[in-house]
Amino acid sequence: MHLGVCYYPEHWPRQKWESDARRMAELGITRVRIAEFAWSRMEPSPGRYDWAWLDEAVDTLARHGLKIIIGTPTASPPKWLVDQHPEILPVAHDGRVWQFGSRRHYDVSSPIYREHCARIVGDMVRRYGAHPAVIAWQTDNELGCHNTLPSYSKAALQRFKHWLEARYESVDALNEAWGNVFWSMEYRRFDDIELPMQTPTDANPAHVLDFRRFQSDEVASFHALQAELIREHAPGRDLLHNFMGFFTQFDHYAFAQSGLDVAAWDSYPVPRTEVLPLAEADKHRWARTGHPDVSAFSHDLYRGVGNGRMWVMEQQAGPVNWAPWNPAPLPGMVRLWTWEAFAHGAELVSYFRWRQYPRAQEQMHSGLNAPDDALSPGGREVARVGEELRALALPSDAPRTRAPVALLFDYEADWITQIQPHGADFDYQQHVFEWYGALRRLGLDVDILSARADVSGYALVVAPTLPVLPASVVEQAARGNGHWLFGPRTGSKTEAYSIPPELPPGQLQTILPVRIGQAESLRPSLRPAVSFDGVEGWATRWRDHAEPGPGAEVLARFEDGVPALVRRGRVSMAAACFDRAMLQAVVARSVRDAGLAAHALPEGLRLRTRGALRFAINYGDAAQPVPAPPGATFVLGGPTIGAADVAAWIER
Amino acid sequence: MHLGVCYYPEHWPRQKWESDARRMAELGITRVRIAEFAWSRMEPSPGRYDWAWLDEAVDTLARHGLKIIIGTPTASPPKWLVDQHPEILPVAHDGRVWQFGSRRHYDVSSPIYREHCARIVGDMVRRYGAHPAVIAWQTDNELGCHNTLPSYSKAALQRFKHWLEARYESVDALNEAWGNVFWSMEYRRFDDIELPMQTPTDANPAHVLDFRRFQSDEVASFHALQAELIREHAPGRDLLHNFMGFFTQFDHYAFAQSGLDVAAWDSYPVPRTEVLPLAEADKHRWARTGHPDVSAFSHDLYRGVGNGRMWVMEQQAGPVNWAPWNPAPLPGMVRLWTWEAFAHGAELVSYFRWRQYPRAQEQMHSGLNAPDDALSPGGREVARVGEELRALALPSDAPRTRAPVALLFDYEADWITQIQPHGADFDYQQHVFEWYGALRRLGLDVDILSARADVSGYALVVAPTLPVLPASVVEQAARGNGHWLFGPRTGSKTEAYSIPPELPPGQLQTILPVRIGQAESLRPSLRPAVSFDGVEGWATRWRDHAEPGPGAEVLARFEDGVPALVRRGRVSMAAACFDRAMLQAVVARSVRDAGLAAHALPEGLRLRTRGALRFAINYGDAAQPVPAPPGATFVLGGPTIGAADVAAWIER
Amino acid sequence: MHLGVCYYPEHWPRQKWESDARRMAELGITRVRIAEFAWSRMEPSPGRYDWAWLDEAVDTLARHGLKIIIGTPTASPPKWLVDQHPEILPVAHDGRVWQFGSRRHYDVSSPIYREHCARIVGDMVRRYGAHPAVIAWQTDNELGCHNTLPSYSKAALQRFKHWLEARYESVDALNEAWGNVFWSMEYRRFDDIELPMQTPTDANPAHVLDFRRFQSDEVASFHALQAELIREHAPGRDLLHNFMGFFTQFDHYAFAQSGLDVAAWDSYPVPRTEVLPLAEADKHRWARTGHPDVSAFSHDLYRGVGNGRMWVMEQQAGPVNWAPWNPAPLPGMVRLWTWEAFAHGAELVSYFRWRQYPRAQEQMHSGLNAPDDALSPGGREVARVGEELRALALPSDAPRTRAPVALLFDYEADWITQIQPHGADFDYQQHVFEWYGALRRLGLDVDILSARADVSGYALVVAPTLPVLPASVVEQAARGNGHWLFGPRTGSKTEAYSIPPELPPGQLQTILPVRIGQAESLRPSLRPAVSFDGVEGWATRWRDHAEPGPGAEVLARFEDGVPALVRRGRVSMAAACFDRAMLQAVVARSVRDAGLAAHALPEGLRLRTRGALRFAINYGDAAQPVPAPPGATFVLGGPTIGAADVAAWIER
Repeated sequence: MHLGVCYYPEHWPRQKWESDARRMAELGITRVRIAEFAWSRMEPSPGRYDWAWLDEAVDTLARHGLKIIIGTPTASPPKWLVDQHPEILPVAHDGRVWQFGSRRHYDVSSPIYREHCARIVGDMVRRYGAHPAVIAWQTDNELGCHNTLPSYSKAALQRFKHWLEARYESVDALNEAWGNVFWSMEYRRFDDIELPMQTPTDANPAHVLDFRRFQSDEVASFHALQAELIREHAPGRDLLHNFMGFFTQFDHYAFAQSGLDVAAWDSYPVPRTEVLPLAEADKHRWARTGHPDVSAFSHDLYRGVGNGRMWVMEQQAGPVNWAPWNPAPLPGMVRLWTWEAFAHGAELVSYFRWRQYPRAQEQMHSGLNAPDDALSPGGREVARVGEELRALALPSDAPRTRAPVALLFDYEADWITQIQPHGADFDYQQHVFEWYGALRRLGLDVDILSARADVSGYALVVAPTLPVLPASVVEQAARGNGHWLFGPRTGSKTEAYSIPPELPPGQLQTILPVRIGQAESLRPSLRPAVSFDGVEGWATRWRDHAEPGPGAEVLARFEDGVPALVRRGRVSMAAACFDRAMLQAVVARSVRDAGLAAHALPEGLRLRTRGALRFAINYGDAAQPVPAPPGATFVLGGPTIGAADVAAWIER
Repeated sequence: MHLGVCYYPEHWPRQKWESDARRMAELGITRVRIAEFAWSRMEPSPGRYDWAWLDEAVDTLARHGLKIIIGTPTASPPKWLVDQHPEILPVAHDGRVWQFGSRRHYDVSSPIYREHCARIVGDMVRRYGAHPAVIAWQTDNELGCHNTLPSYSKAALQRFKHWLEARYESVDALNEAWGNVFWSMEYRRFDDIELPMQTPTDANPAHVLDFRRFQSDEVASFHALQAELIREHAPGRDLLHNFMGFFTQFDHYAFAQSGLDVAAWDSYPVPRTEVLPLAEADKHRWARTGHPDVSAFSHDLYRGVGNGRMWVMEQQAGPVNWAPWNPAPLPGMVRLWTWEAFAHGAELVSYFRWRQYPRAQEQMHSGLNAPDDALSPGGREVARVGEELRALALPSDAPRTRAPVALLFDYEADWITQIQPHGADFDYQQHVFEWYGALRRLGLDVDILSARADVSGYALVVAPTLPVLPASVVEQAARGNGHWLFGPRTGSKTEAYSIPPELPPGQLQTILPVRIGQAESLRPSLRPAVSFDGVEGWATRWRDHAEPGPGAEVLARFEDGVPALVRRGRVSMAAACFDRAMLQAVVARSVRDAGLAAHALPEGLRLRTRGALRFAINYGDAAQPVPAPPGATFVLGGPTIGAADVAAWIER
Repeated sequence: MHLGVCYYPEHWPRQKWESDARRMAELGITRVRIAEFAWSRMEPSPGRYDWAWLDEAVDTLARHGLKIIIGTPTASPPKWLVDQHPEILPVAHDGRVWQFGSRRHYDVSSPIYREHCARIVGDMVRRYGAHPAVIAWQTDNELGCHNTLPSYSKAALQRFKHWLEARYESVDALNEAWGNVFWSMEYRRFDDIELPMQTPTDANPAHVLDFRRFQSDEVASFHALQAELIREHAPGRDLLHNFMGFFTQFDHYAFAQSGLDVAAWDSYPVPRTEVLPLAEADKHRWARTGHPDVSAFSHDLYRGVGNGRMWVMEQQAGPVNWAPWNPAPLPGMVRLWTWEAFAHGAELVSYFRWRQYPRAQEQMHSGLNAPDDALSPGGREVARVGEELRALALPSDAPRTRAPVALLFDYEADWITQIQPHGADFDYQQHVFEWYGALRRLGLDVDILSARADVSGYALVVAPTLPVLPASVVEQAARGNGHWLFGPRTGSKTEAYSIPPELPPGQLQTILPVRIGQAESLRPSLRPAVSFDGVEGWATRWRDHAEPGPGAEVLARFEDGVPALVRRGRVSMAAACFDRAMLQAVVARSVRDAGLAAHALPEGLRLRTRGALRFAINYGDAAQPVPAPPGATFVLGGPTIGAADVAAWIER
């Protein structure tokens, strides 16, 4: 378990670097990320490089025993490059070109920009790849941030045509797959195809889905170009990208295949809670702590993306600047978030940033130090974590233990339901997040995995929804021993964005014989009632009208007779979205069926196991008894934990 | 009374056509609409036609005794035509060009596009015009749908200048009419005039109104071009367009003059209720049935547009895809809507569509059959209607009986109040709809007519508002025997979009001497109280401050003394918008004055007479006694009707 | 005290001019503003002038003893000028060009347009500058109205580069000041700089702030160009611009330096109340009167801008057309607003407009006369004021008496908090308005002054917030005798839009030793509680976390221990935004500390002194006793005033 920090030496006078490095080490920090966004300092004019300052920064940090993660600066091309090649600028959905003056002003499909990226990254990695203190490389920064993905540029169009040609081979096959006979949308050759933009009404969803797949592949190949150079010239170093939690513009599982050792992610629990589509009451309740599942969800997701290896590259350490409102976190939360990350398997928690920069866009984003060099409240909490870590001396790598429950997450599912939400408030991430929360409130550890993952060995596999149902899921559900719980909209689409010929839930019918004759979205006021396991609840947002076939057991029905929950053997399907209590009851039933022990936790309390350690994390605003077995040995805290506090004990 | 269906043979393999036709006939369907949107199949490449498939489709349907309505495919020009002539694409208000990839991507003013439309329609009608099974022709599809009207293209500007020159003859006359001296907006010649777009603040309302009139004329002449070809080559066939309910981008009464035998319209009660500006409580209450007046309103309107002949070309038959939320209709509603349409005089109710197409934009729009060919819930209700119709054997044509009440509807009134709503929530259609509902809740049949119609013989004429008051209205009100009830904003504008010199209500003052000294719009919280006929109500949205002249009787005053309802003889004016109860009281007074018998109906119940038959239609959620006379002979249902059910009896 | 009116003779037939002038004089009107917007009549074609009509209009008015204010017509360039030079059109933030067809369709930075303005204004002022009846000149109209400021044109970019070069001298200094090293935003030369538009995420706030400063300077120099010509050819005449209340696109204090004798402003209390970001309950409560502080605030502000001389150039005289809802003012309000303006020092109250123009954009904007020439309700109230003024015969110029309290207003503070509000609902004007209201509800007269003003002699100086704290403020607070109350965010930024090195409140720390370690914005539901002076209140929107240094007294703390109000000696700082009651308590404490007598007024009652006269103004809806001393001599009204009424007495 390492502490780290994001540091921008180029923002500060050189005379500060030495004391900064010393104070980092004193605080217990061992890892420092540098260099991202510094292109204009590495190459102030075309072809004129200045590495001296970076050499000195690297050496200064190294002298204090700090290990370095170098970020490539490709998220912010300098002005001279934009002036030389304005065609590298990205294009918005309405055809307008995004301009220089902030960041991410580049088109991921631009061949010219890719050339320049390869050049600067190649130069960097040849210079620092073998430096003993440089232990890892990060490509770019938060790919998918802001509005520049997808880019509707000429370059994107050209590459999209080739991508389509490679996928479909003949334009007839494409017309057939997309159903272009509808509304005379047929193309005569690949070259006739355009980007799905500025159409009077919705573009063909199959067109849009393929465009999003293409863009996802573009992001991966943009990363791969840098990854190959890093692999070549920085052998043995960790390769990573810092993903942003809850960003789904590209498929992270596919991206990870393009070269990645660690899934690093940027964790901002308070603003994330403000901007997620949560209920207003939840946004209020967790305004100073972040929602108790919001960090855990991304930890569990990125642990899967990183094939077990997960870092927090940027950890919120105080008030930030980018949400509609930016309150100060409750005292204790920076320490809590840190321990929570470790509990979920993080190898590193790195704070953003060393010192608040008093100028430019992020001047209201706090760091471990105020601009006047005094430790911020968050910085003081980090000092405490540093001491605790020193006292504990735990191993950095998390044991690769498997959780009892796997939850299947699918990036395409998000795109598909964005393209045709059908109900205005259907949000894939919110939906999955609710299901995840239901499991977590039962005290269960969860692994979030790709819908294509091997899930053998899990007692329970939960798929909140999988519009496109991979054959491997049906096969595993058919032959394994685990229990499965599927949600609504499952199997509702083919790979080509059409309704499957056998109707939803598609091939799931081979093991759970139900036919979804029709489906409906529900305005918030429309709440078909259902009673189950003593809970009086209702459907919300979506309802599949399931017609059970032979052997399908209807466990619950809505008041109008429509089935709410159907099951055959180990496989169940919830045919609607539910209110919180009913969803909890439905999930609890599958947990029980799977023979798992569940603890219904009080509000705000969460549990998580890392190796031999079991952690209790208290997001609530009152002290709570810890559900540790009698006689447990505590290594953090004790049998009662206060608000914004954590405890850990050795589980027998 | 015929049942019909919309069918797209080009979506399905040929081997299905035969069984589709057979099953249609079995269901009681006698009419099939085909061919709209199929341009890319009729002319796959420029000048290369393929009629074989359509020949076969027509013959297959005909073989099963089905009569065919052919739609022209001009709502979706194929890609090759767009590539040859990108200038046919329409232009949005912000100057951006709408692109290929959905539908309606054409500029109604484009001379090139009109040429190509004449060519393809000419070819079609010469081929199928004399086919004995082809009994009707529909032009284009839902003109005005999506955002392509008005189009701000160069072609539109050119034709607008000529339209203005024809209307005003001299630019001085135009400057005077528009009041262009205001803000130095004067033009020196017609050629200087631009489209009313992208002005820093509001464009001149007279400029905008003339542009909307011009666009309305353009739509009519676009239709006329096709209508003339159809008249020439398909003599004796019905000519129609399928209007969309609640679309007002062009003047349907004027359009009907450009060549129309039947006003067909597309009826989607559930999504329409969701998107109309109704109160949230109403949207919730009628979420699964549609508002009880929403279909009836369009039936009564289009019966007037079609000069007595009205079809439902597309009838919702299950959940659709295009509203913010798309719930399943309550069981029984598809049958109810069908009988309701017949009760209001429809000759044909044609469902959209035969079978749900599992691909492309409308894949979540249900049909009579699911994609797997099983009848949908709606399809099963249609089967029942088919049996009922067979049993009843009623004539197809509705008797041309006149309702006791005429309600005047005016498309320009909608444009005028959109251009300067003055109050943010003033919506012409909502306003008229409320007045219509007040009449309907009293059990009255209503004819909705053009403000220029001859209304002699009506006991009561209601004009919810007529900003521009036609001279013919004043004349008829002055000399007839009927009673008249006018609403607020009446006579508030001249034809040239200015305040009339005598102030509102303009020439109405000659028969009802009031002067509207000032008018005000009211924020929702501002509710001037008024008491009338035992009802305590309030004004909402709008209040005219009427100053009564000699002979004008003030029937009700607001608490601050402003008159609410004034009358002289047979002519009354409600000088404000009211809450529902007060509006009901005001309308009921005029109904009483006119000597009409009113039945205050329970919530959700509606009545309607067709010839000798009287129908009761129950949108409510409980069984209700039918207000039939004792001993009435029921031909449908009986003296009590359940929820979502209908009854019909022979009225003595 | 003069009454005036805005008159557009070009809108009306010449035969009306004579009677219009006569009726104006009869009504008590002595001042008439004409000619603004009439460019197309003065110069109907390029270089072809027509002055005859204007000569006649001026002479007609003069014949009736009316004095004339001429407005230059540069707010509405004629079509021929736009056609000759389309590059004079302004450019929106998204790069689209605003078009002809309304008004303000010009780019303030266009050198060509400036040339044409100089030409037409030069011609006008040479013709009428010496006319004895023409006593004042107004430039343009409501600069900053609509969306044309800032303009993102090529001309603006060119001039902005020069402006920056003049300000920073070297591009390195600019890079350093803006912090352009952040995100590699560095420029290599001034010519590389672009306008802050269409960036994927926020542009650099320092870049945006300088652009807004530049635009403010552009507006001032645009005015100065005309001002110089007027000074030269119309010596001794008053020079003015009609500002719009609550417009802050440019710095009015700086603008006044570019040539101004009188600050005239346009007062529309009812629509202004509707569009200000007030609480919904307040909008409702004052929907027909305007908020009781909304006119007073601008009176007190513009009196400062005009260095003591303030006119109301356009006074609302009935319902208007431009708010979302436009109710009729409560009877009595037009008279009330007039007397209120005089009470606050206005020399002239001029109504908009003489007669409602029945055509074009503003046809629903009432005037003193209806289009049929009958006096409107507002017109009848003006007649009463005319009689009252005749009876009183008070001097036109307001005595230059100083209020006991100065409130510091800063245009840059508005820009700074707009550029980075940090909390979505932080609105500078709303914030200042709340503080102003707290003072006014205590019965205090207030002078609103520039943050750079000399405030010696004021008992209390209130700065609701001053992100950039001028050195002069700190100096005056340090050495004077007055008491000071600062609000949150004070001293939070440097001139270059960065956090000051010593942290907020910057140099204020030299007299009030507190360090704002961190600041937070609060979602509306987040309300940290605080108790003070018997009031239980809470923070809203913003909270500074103040760390008090030696000698700083903490007068109130939030429940979590964060200080709410700190003081040392005569200087206090409120470290948060508060709910109304708590803000009142905090302000009352400083008023008490400053030794000022406060009267807590009942809702809707306000007081104001003009020379020897003290006015009571009743916005409330019930009669109230006037807080006049026993035996006071009333010159208007008496010891009790009704709703929408005023009283005035001679204060002993």
